[in-house]
Amino acid sequence: MSIKLIYASPETDADLLHWGGVFTCDPFLAFAVEGQRYAVSNSLEIDEMRRNSKFDKIFLPQDLTDQENPEIIDLIRCVCEKFPENDLVLPKNFPAYLILKLQQLGIKFSVIEDDFLPERSIKSPKEIDRIRKACAANSDAFARVRSILEKAEIRDQLLYYEGEVVTSESMRTEIARVCFERGTIAKETIVACGKDAAFPHNRGEGPLKANEFIVVDIFPRLVESGYYGDMTRTFFKGQPSETQIKIYNAVKTVQNRAISEIHGGKNAKEIHEDNVKMFTELGYSSTDSTGFFHGTGHGVGLELHENPSIGKRDHHLQIGEVVTVEPGLYYPEIGGVRIEDVVAVTENGAELLSNFSYEWVV
Amino acid sequence: MSIKLIYASPETDADLLHWGGVFTCDPFLAFAVEGQRYAVSNSLEIDEMRRNSKFDKIFLPQDLTDQENPEIIDLIRCVCEKFPENDLVLPKNFPAYLILKLQQLGIKFSVIEDDFLPERSIKSPKEIDRIRKACAANSDAFARVRSILEKAEIRDQLLYYEGEVVTSESMRTEIARVCFERGTIAKETIVACGKDAAFPHNRGEGPLKANEFIVVDIFPRLVESGYYGDMTRTFFKGQPSETQIKIYNAVKTVQNRAISEIHGGKNAKEIHEDNVKMFTELGYSSTDSTGFFHGTGHGVGLELHENPSIGKRDHHLQIGEVVTVEPGLYYPEIGGVRIEDVVAVTENGAELLSNFSYEWVV
Repeated sequence: MSIKLIYASPETDADLLHWGGVFTCDPFLAFAVEGQRYAVSNSLEIDEMRRNSKFDKIFLPQDLTDQENPEIIDLIRCVCEKFPENDLVLPKNFPAYLILKLQQLGIKFSVIEDDFLPERSIKSPKEIDRIRKACAANSDAFARVRSILEKAEIRDQLLYYEGEVVTSESMRTEIARVCFERGTIAKETIVACGKDAAFPHNRGEGPLKANEFIVVDIFPRLVESGYYGDMTRTFFKGQPSETQIKIYNAVKTVQNRAISEIHGGKNAKEIHEDNVKMFTELGYSSTDSTGFFHGTGHGVGLELHENPSIGKRDHHLQIGEVVTVEPGLYYPEIGGVRIEDVVAVTENGAELLSNFSYEWVV
Repeated sequence: MSIKLIYASPETDADLLHWGGVFTCDPFLAFAVEGQRYAVSNSLEIDEMRRNSKFDKIFLPQDLTDQENPEIIDLIRCVCEKFPENDLVLPKNFPAYLILKLQQLGIKFSVIEDDFLPERSIKSPKEIDRIRKACAANSDAFARVRSILEKAEIRDQLLYYEGEVVTSESMRTEIARVCFERGTIAKETIVACGKDAAFPHNRGEGPLKANEFIVVDIFPRLVESGYYGDMTRTFFKGQPSETQIKIYNAVKTVQNRAISEIHGGKNAKEIHEDNVKMFTELGYSSTDSTGFFHGTGHGVGLELHENPSIGKRDHHLQIGEVVTVEPGLYYPEIGGVRIEDVVAVTENGAELLSNFSYEWVV
């Protein structure tokens, strides 16, 4: 058997958050042995941890050692002594200084380079509900974006709403507000118009323009539980050209088919390769930085980007995995289009967890 | 000379955020050699990084190696080869799996157990402004708390505001809303009443009560820059007993004197010891879990808790350091009182960066 051990803060470590289900300010030690999950808390946090966490047992340092003010490495040593015959197994991001101390003490360990808690990628119905809830906040924010764009007037190619120029920044603020009111935090939201939208991770800045693609990518995180939603819609205020219509329709066609290809057992790599192929057939071939040059999707859960990915690597999708499907096309002279939804893999297909209209011309 | 190298995400690594000044979704490699700061970005992020980050130079992986799809360890090897004669220096939280690969490759390195960027604890005027701004959001939230408590009616020891029972949860939502409107995110806010307040990190739950201490501890983080504020006020709705008044006054007296003791060169440990002593003189001795049993304060900046701390360890305060001063008293039968402000250390004293009334009885 093994002792799986983490030293981190749930704010920054999704595995630890998955074990304990609680946020704490400071890092702490946690471990799992024989199906039981343990945490080592301090006197400031212990009451909160005992009331609200999912750990089976919570120790204070003095439960493990008589030493006064033990260091973390001392506590790890005590844990190893408490459960002899078990191998110490650590996550890939385990802190360097503790690795060196373990080596000095001659304590054997192994570091897992793959997922430390592979069970995290299969979501429970409760987790799927939470992701759906985060996506619902996402949709409400899109509704607000659409409403502002609908009401906006075009003057000199700029958009005016309630007398003010609509900018990436003002739109981001509105999106954050809606997400906040729905119990989520939306940071780093992308509202990228025109040439900004040609770079997939460009957040966008300055006035939004008529007759240009506006890519809006929101990834709100539920404050209470830490689960993410992740959706992208591309909007357009004005009159699209034939080129623009053709690009939008190509992305939507590819996304539709990608979603329809998903089911338990399907190789994610094939879905991605089919997307690349279909774009090429539709007249959109790709280079390193134009056309379709990112992956088709990624897992979503307690991390925004987690396993599995739908891209260049083989992976047979499993029932209960939750992934984004987000093909896009990007051209420096034109801008970009991306459409992204979140789906849960089921036996026979994909269940959409995100839900918002694909009407793009406002 | 040395190569200081980080592999992390600015969302979770304050050192990297300090170097680059930008948030990105995914981890990336960054390093500093001879006063220059470098990042290794990918094609999705590079445009955003070039526009908005503070790095002196941003590489793509292909600038460093001809290898296709290089792993992080390959890039680190290239960096070391590019700057020979320099020692590789890594932070204490550097990922374990990369440490093991460096050892396998025979690449020498050292891991810094102390602060990786000790310069971070001395704040620039711009950083101090940001912390002040975060504290201003904090104060606005306290004003909202006070206003609700003032307007609340007492019925059967519960507080009613606009027809609803006021709870820790409802107050937390209001606080988060005010903080949000001020460009900050306030998570894990403590609104702990009565016996809940006897545990310093208990977030509090359920209805707030009349005639009990209500500890409100808020630590909003500026969305754009990542700097924190951190303030605590203790409120009271109703008529305090003599015991309660005495406890509150003791905490305020100790906080006042602690702040007055702060100046460049002062040993932080003495301030803490003086606090313990003064509480004892005032009749409040401490155990492991009653009285005053946490530190006097901690550094605040891009992390909520960072160096220096005002506690049991020797540290001579330096001009430009920013710390909290937050003595408290906690008794299981009575509850707790904590008062916390943020100050910048100056040559002759402490400059208050937080500003809100200490009137506690509403």
